[in-house]
Order: sequence, then C-alpha cells, then structure tokens
Amino acid sequence: MKKQAKAAINPTRAEDYPQWYQEVIKHSDLAERSPVRGCMVIKPWGYAIWENIKQVLDNMFKETGVKNAYFPLFIPLSFLEKEAEHVEGFAKECAVVTHHRLEKGPDGGLVPAGQLNEPLIIRPTSETIIGDSFSRWVDSYRDLPVLINQWANVVRWEMRPRLFLRTSEFLWQEGHTAHATKDEAITRTKMMLNIYEKLAEEYLAMPVIKGRKTPSERFPGAVDTMCIEAMMQDRKALQAGTSHFLGQNFAKASDIKFQSAEEKEEYAWTTSWGVSTRLIGGLIMTHSDDDGIILPPKIASSHVVLLPIIKNPKDRSKVMEFTESLAKELKDKSYAHRSIEVEIDDRDIGGARGWDWIKKGIPLRVEIGPRDIAENSVFVGRRDQEHNNKTSLKRDVFVAEITDILDEIQKNLFERAISLRKENSVKIDDTRKFKEFFTPENLEKPEIHGGFALSHWCGSDECESRIKEDLSVTIRCIPFDIENEKGKCVCCGRPSTNRVVFAKAY
Amino acid sequence: MKKQAKAAINPTRAEDYPQWYQEVIKHSDLAERSPVRGCMVIKPWGYAIWENIKQVLDNMFKETGVKNAYFPLFIPLSFLEKEAEHVEGFAKECAVVTHHRLEKGPDGGLVPAGQLNEPLIIRPTSETIIGDSFSRWVDSYRDLPVLINQWANVVRWEMRPRLFLRTSEFLWQEGHTAHATKDEAITRTKMMLNIYEKLAEEYLAMPVIKGRKTPSERFPGAVDTMCIEAMMQDRKALQAGTSHFLGQNFAKASDIKFQSAEEKEEYAWTTSWGVSTRLIGGLIMTHSDDDGIILPPKIASSHVVLLPIIKNPKDRSKVMEFTESLAKELKDKSYAHRSIEVEIDDRDIGGARGWDWIKKGIPLRVEIGPRDIAENSVFVGRRDQEHNNKTSLKRDVFVAEITDILDEIQKNLFERAISLRKENSVKIDDTRKFKEFFTPENLEKPEIHGGFALSHWCGSDECESRIKEDLSVTIRCIPFDIENEKGKCVCCGRPSTNRVVFAKAY
Repeated sequence: MKKQAKAAINPTRAEDYPQWYQEVIKHSDLAERSPVRGCMVIKPWGYAIWENIKQVLDNMFKETGVKNAYFPLFIPLSFLEKEAEHVEGFAKECAVVTHHRLEKGPDGGLVPAGQLNEPLIIRPTSETIIGDSFSRWVDSYRDLPVLINQWANVVRWEMRPRLFLRTSEFLWQEGHTAHATKDEAITRTKMMLNIYEKLAEEYLAMPVIKGRKTPSERFPGAVDTMCIEAMMQDRKALQAGTSHFLGQNFAKASDIKFQSAEEKEEYAWTTSWGVSTRLIGGLIMTHSDDDGIILPPKIASSHVVLLPIIKNPKDRSKVMEFTESLAKELKDKSYAHRSIEVEIDDRDIGGARGWDWIKKGIPLRVEIGPRDIAENSVFVGRRDQEHNNKTSLKRDVFVAEITDILDEIQKNLFERAISLRKENSVKIDDTRKFKEFFTPENLEKPEIHGGFALSHWCGSDECESRIKEDLSVTIRCIPFDIENEKGKCVCCGRPSTNRVVFAKAY
Repeated sequence: MKKQAKAAINPTRAEDYPQWYQEVIKHSDLAERSPVRGCMVIKPWGYAIWENIKQVLDNMFKETGVKNAYFPLFIPLSFLEKEAEHVEGFAKECAVVTHHRLEKGPDGGLVPAGQLNEPLIIRPTSETIIGDSFSRWVDSYRDLPVLINQWANVVRWEMRPRLFLRTSEFLWQEGHTAHATKDEAITRTKMMLNIYEKLAEEYLAMPVIKGRKTPSERFPGAVDTMCIEAMMQDRKALQAGTSHFLGQNFAKASDIKFQSAEEKEEYAWTTSWGVSTRLIGGLIMTHSDDDGIILPPKIASSHVVLLPIIKNPKDRSKVMEFTESLAKELKDKSYAHRSIEVEIDDRDIGGARGWDWIKKGIPLRVEIGPRDIAENSVFVGRRDQEHNNKTSLKRDVFVAEITDILDEIQKNLFERAISLRKENSVKIDDTRKFKEFFTPENLEKPEIHGGFALSHWCGSDECESRIKEDLSVTIRCIPFDIENEKGKCVCCGRPSTNRVVFAKAY
C-alpha cells in the first residue's frame, strides 16, 4: 500500500470510525451539538441537504395524491395510551410538558407554574393525534382514502445522542393514510416504501435492501413494518426508512369508522410511513472519505464552487468578471429538480480555501486564473476523484457538459456503495462462521464490523434474541427480493424457508 | 338595499362577526380545533396557503443572502433568563418540559418520570438559543454578517385561542442576523420589513401600513420594533409581521463578540423578524364574504376547479375527456411562482358541488357540459364576482387569458381592501370624537369597530395606557409614510409632531 498524503479528517476511518464521523460533520459544517442535551443545530450546509430531500420526496408524495397538513406538537397522555403496544413502545423516551407558565420561585429564580390537568407529550410520532382528526373526517367510504403527510419535528428522548443518527429532537415527515380495504392499505404501504427506495438509491446514491421487519422489530402497534436498510462504511446497517401497515389497530384505538358501500359500519385500515434527518447521517457514512463528506450531486447543498485565483491585484476585475459571468451561465442550467447552484469563494486564504470545499463535499471545484481565462478554459476538480487530479476544460465544454459530469459523479458514488455492500455481504450457513463474522477479535478494528450475513432463521423469537444478546446482531429485515431457499437456522438448526439479513446496526 | 339570497355562511359578517369567522374556516376546510387546548389542525386546503407563503418568502429571503438552518425546539430556562425583558415578556405563556419519560404510577396509569435537572421551555421564539450558536460562529468581522432563517413551530400558551389568529402552537419563520455595525443591522431590519410588505400587498392582496411600535408595544428585549399593520373587515387592526432591531442587547446576553478590522473586541448588532400562520387569519378577515373565503390567486391553494356536468351517463366519457385535456393544458401554464393548479370535481351531488368551491374560495370555477363542448367553450365563474354571474368563453380564449383573469382577481381583491381601509381611516383631532369613534354604542354592531384613527400623540406612556384602558384602543404604529405635522395629543392636548395609528386590534 503506497504511502498516502495526510488526510483532511483526523482521525481517519481506519483509525477511529466513530470519532471520524464526528469530525466529518464538524469540518463539513453540516451541524453541531447544542447546549440542549441530545439536540442538534442543523447548520445551513446541512439544512440545504434536508431541503433537497424534502423537495424530492414532497413531489413524489404529491404525485400519488398525498396532501400536506399540520397537526399539534402536543399529544395528551390519554391519547397515547389508546393503543397499548404503542404507548409501551414510546413511554421511556417521552418529553413531558407539565406546566404552562413560569413564576418567581421562593429563591427569586423562575420556576414552572400553572400545572396542567393532563400532561402533554411532545409527539414522538403522530398516529394517535392524527387518528383523532381522521375519526372526524371519515364518515363514509366516499371519504376514503385519506392521504396525509406532515413535515414536522418530533422528540424521542435519547440518552446517548449522536448527530443526525440519534438525536432527542429530529426532523422528519410522517405520512398517515386511511383506506376502506386491507388490500388498498397494504398496496399503499408498499408504494411509499418504493418511494423511499427511489429517494435512497437515485438521489442519495445509497443502495438499500427492501424487506420486512421481524415481529420484535416492528413499529409499536403495527401489523407489518417494511423498511429499507443500507450498509454504512463500517459495515453496520442503518434503517433508512420505514412504512407500516397498521391494520385496524389504530382505527380501533381512534375510532376511525366508516359506512361501507354496503351500508355496514367498518373500521378503516391505516398506514404510516416516515423518513428523517437520520438520512443525512446515512449519507455521511455512505459517501464520506478521509477528506470529508462527498455530496451526491442530486441532493448536494450546492453543485459547484468557483475559485478565482488572483495573485496580482491588477487581475482582479478581469478574473471576477469571468467568474461571475460563468456563474450566471451555470445557474441558468438545471439539474435534477432545480437550477444548478453555484458558490463563489474569493477569500484570500491560500490552499485552505480548496480544502474547505473538499471537506464540505461540493461535487465540483473550478479554479479560474488569468492563464485559464487567456485560454478561455477552467480547471476542474471532482470530489469523487483524488483532490489533485484536476482537468483543464474549455469553458464552453464545461458549461455544456456539467450536467453529464454531475451524473457521472452521482453514478460513481452509487456504484462504490454497491461494491462495498457486495464485498461485505456473505451467505453464511455455519454457526461458528456466523459468530466469527460478527466477533470483533477477528477484525482489524473493533469499530469496523462484519457486514451483512445472509443466513437462515427458523422464525423463532428465541433464536432472534439469543443472537442479539450474544453478538449484538439483529435481523435487519426479511428481504423481499430473495429467492425461496430451504436451509437450517444458523442459531438452532431447525428448518428455514428463507435467508434473512443479519447485521450490527445503528 | 335589495334583498339578498341567503348567504352560504351563517351567521353573516353583519350578524355576528366572530362567529362568522369560525364558520368561514369550517366551511372552507382550512383548519379545525384540536383536542389539545389552544392548538389547531391545519387541514390540506389551509396548509397549501402556508406552503405558498413559505415558497414566496423563502425565495425573497434567499435573494438577500439569507440561509435556512434549524435550531432546537427546547430552550433551557437559564438561556431565556439571560435577557431580563425577554424572559419577563414570555414567562406567562411558556410550555415547560419537566420530565423525559413515563412510568406506571401508583394507580396503574402512566405518570411523568425522569425529572430534568433544568426545566426546558418550548421555544416561544429563538433569540437566545440561536444567539448561543452565533456566539460560536462569530470570531472576526470576516464572519459577519450572519444571515439565518428557520421555519419552525413555536409555542406561546394561549388562554383564549382563536384559529390562526391566536393559537398556543403556531408555525412561523424567524430570521436572525448579526452584523458588525449598527447601521447595517438597521438596514437589514427595514429590508425584511419591506419583504413582508411585498408579501402582504402583492401576494396576500392585503394592504398594510409600515411603521414603528411605541416602546410599550416593542418585542421584549428589542431596541426598535417595526411592523406591518392591516385593517380587517371588522375594522380592527392585525399586526401581520414584525422586524426587530435588537441593538446589542441579545449579543451581550449571548456573548456574540467579534474582533473588528481595527482588532478591537466588539459586540455584534443583531436583528430578528418573523411572520406566522396568523397571516392566514388576516387573509380570511381581509377577503372573505358571506359565502366564505376568497383566495387571492397568487397564494391560493389551487387556482381553478373544473366541474364536469354529466346529466346523461352516455356523455360521461366525452365530458371527462374534454375536462382532463383542459386540465392538462392549464397545468402546463405558470402563474406567479408555480404552475397553474387545477382541481377536477366530478362528484354527483347537485348544486352543493359548486357551493363547496365557492366556500373554499377557489378563484375560478369552470363548468363543462355537453353543450359547452359542442361549442368548444367553457362556462366560467369568478370568486370575486356574484356567484351566478358566469361567462361563456371559448376554450382557447380561456386558456390564453387565464393568467390575465387571475391577475384581475388579484388586483380587485387588493383594491377592495384598500377601499375598506380608506373608508375607515379618519384623521381625528378632537378628544370627544376620538372616543365616539371607538365606542360601541355609536356603532351598528358591537363587533364592528371604528377603524383607524390617525391622531396626534404626545409620546407619553401615560396617554397611551389611558387610551388603552378607557377604550381598549392601542397605538398600532407610528407610520413611516406620514408627513410631519404639528398638532395636539388627542388625549392630553400637549404638543405632538406626528400622527399615529390608533385602533382596536387582534
């Protein structure tokens, strides 16, 4: 292995993966910890990614007839208690509002006052409060389906927070639908999962496996939880989105009834589905290298930075004029769902300037100096290539080809991620080999994990929880796209009809 | 006055204005009360207005260099206390989080558990939590200005809630900027107020008066609060947006310091500015009539509804084909910041169908029957005209002219609102006449108020608060666009250099 130049991120992935993750976020200027335990500040460069994800998803949702609405942040405790499994699933991570004002306390400082008759929970998810509205909106089969989404913040109290991946407050969308028939609700559950797959693969360049959760990993109160699972660079899995078929559980809890075409009173069939700012954590761990994040062009905060090179002050006006006219020309072009976004950075800070943009992961860096201008060309660096591998291109060629170059970068990132997953996904039938695959002693570094083991499972809770206890490995999903194949459970040896995906997970 | 057909909204404005407001919201399907005290559910038809407002504002903000970010929902009590006037201003309406989980209580039900060391306040506004980030982001004058906006929910506990106008939780944007000089911060404060004026007048068709609040009406902690004030149809004022120059108060509270070009350590100068879902309340009370809301085309949830008329089932395919091809043609056109949005309503419910859309305020209703198709024409009703005043237009003429028609509606609505304000804005110099103007006995209905009194004020807190106590009338603003004119205070008779706007207010 040839000696590498020092990387921009310290430590590197190989040296200390978890610390590397924190440093990438810091140096890419995506987010920061806040003084409020478990909460984060999403900085403009990170928030722009979320805005792009929102726009792409929102368009896809609306094409299927979904409409946006907004429901209260607060859920009365009694609402949450309506569905027994549901409240049990969230009780340990609820932020509770108990008072509605502040007043001077005995020692002169302010203390909570105006105690509420019933505590309010900050929504960890909104099935119960949205269900309450649905019960009023639905009378007849003619009112169905109801197809609603909301973009919102939610709170699930987190004792061991990690930026983007696990924060007490996070941003997400939650879709909630109600249908007249079970089949229609299941079709909708799958339809939304397919939208998440498309977002992940085509926009985030993050390959995912679609499948079904085991009963123990289901959303609290769901009949069936479908998910997309991605492999991170440390070979752990990230659950990147879920879509739940809720059967009639929440309709019964919230009394969502309708009169059918046959004039019978029936409970509706509901679904819910969501993705969150966690996707940005997945993006970082899918595409970053030891120089920082690499943003897939389709959801990048910005596409290209122009870096005027002005060594002699007398060149300034000529160089800036060229730079600004190029910026204008590029902004008039469109790529994916928006115009090409262009930054101009004329700070006089030497080599640090280029490195700032490498760490921030902008797809293209374009240097423009007097010599380039004389030749009517630009000097282009791609974030998916080595940082000193730059190419001189005629200005008009660059303008004409920029969308193709962006597409190439997008494709490269996806292919690299596919390769990583392929290299680290193994069919394992032997119990001993299965243990070895997931046992840190056999790995170079304890933070780099085995990968995805495609192994047989008998379907029992016992085997699932034994593996979880022994190895901290969970069944990420029962994949949809896998051939039926008979085998023996990797834990107990009993017969199995299907391989499932085992992995350590975030 | 000629006898009117019964209106769609019961009661009418004249009969019971406050109740009329509630009924308009219900029948237009904009929002509903939620079971959570003071909170509302914004339904899709209402939320779409907010999405349009967001898009228009977001574009205008970004053009001035503002970037979006996201900060925590929770504010530690100690942060809020950093600015004395600020915490005093919000203490009485704070939702307080005191616990972070639920556990089984003595009687088996769930109770709050895991008490926090420090209570967290749900943000009523974010100066202090954003200031904390700014203190980390700003070191040198080169880091300034910082221009940030966030789209978020906030909570200000409300004992007498009213949909859109006053709810415990509401949606808004809050901009926060930090600058190296006082002048630059004041320029930014005015710049954002001008953007709000543009949004209000050009998009919401809601005329506003720009001005400055008196010291007693300032944002808690601000040095100067600028505002836009609109007149509602009951002649009360609505504060529709505010932009605050915060001086160095919050920079000192949050320790936002920078090294100047002269290498001196200085506090930054900050601003904050916001508008909220309250604007939708203002929209309703500016444009609705006794048949429901009238949506200004530029921010309407949708522009046009196509109403196929199928009396004979054998006509269905022909009528639907014409309808759908017209819809497609219209959607390919753009208006203001987006494509023309088209609804198709083929419900077979008789006249109720047309009335549903009148109540929802869609700008254009287009009836399409076999006879229209035979003549290649459509039958168009405009929401700014009498409901039975419909016009037959050739299909191609309608398609060609639809954006002009929408512009005309937009203009009409603005002109009507201007007229109402003009008719009900009066220069009053006499104390007795001033009292009469605002005294219910002299009015037809107690819910319809005097209007805007342009009167002299000496500048004293005493006169301002006496008028407030006696008449429930406040100084809405000291208008920017008013000629200097000497006069005598309408309360005490002392000299004054300027008229101010007095009104009852929401």
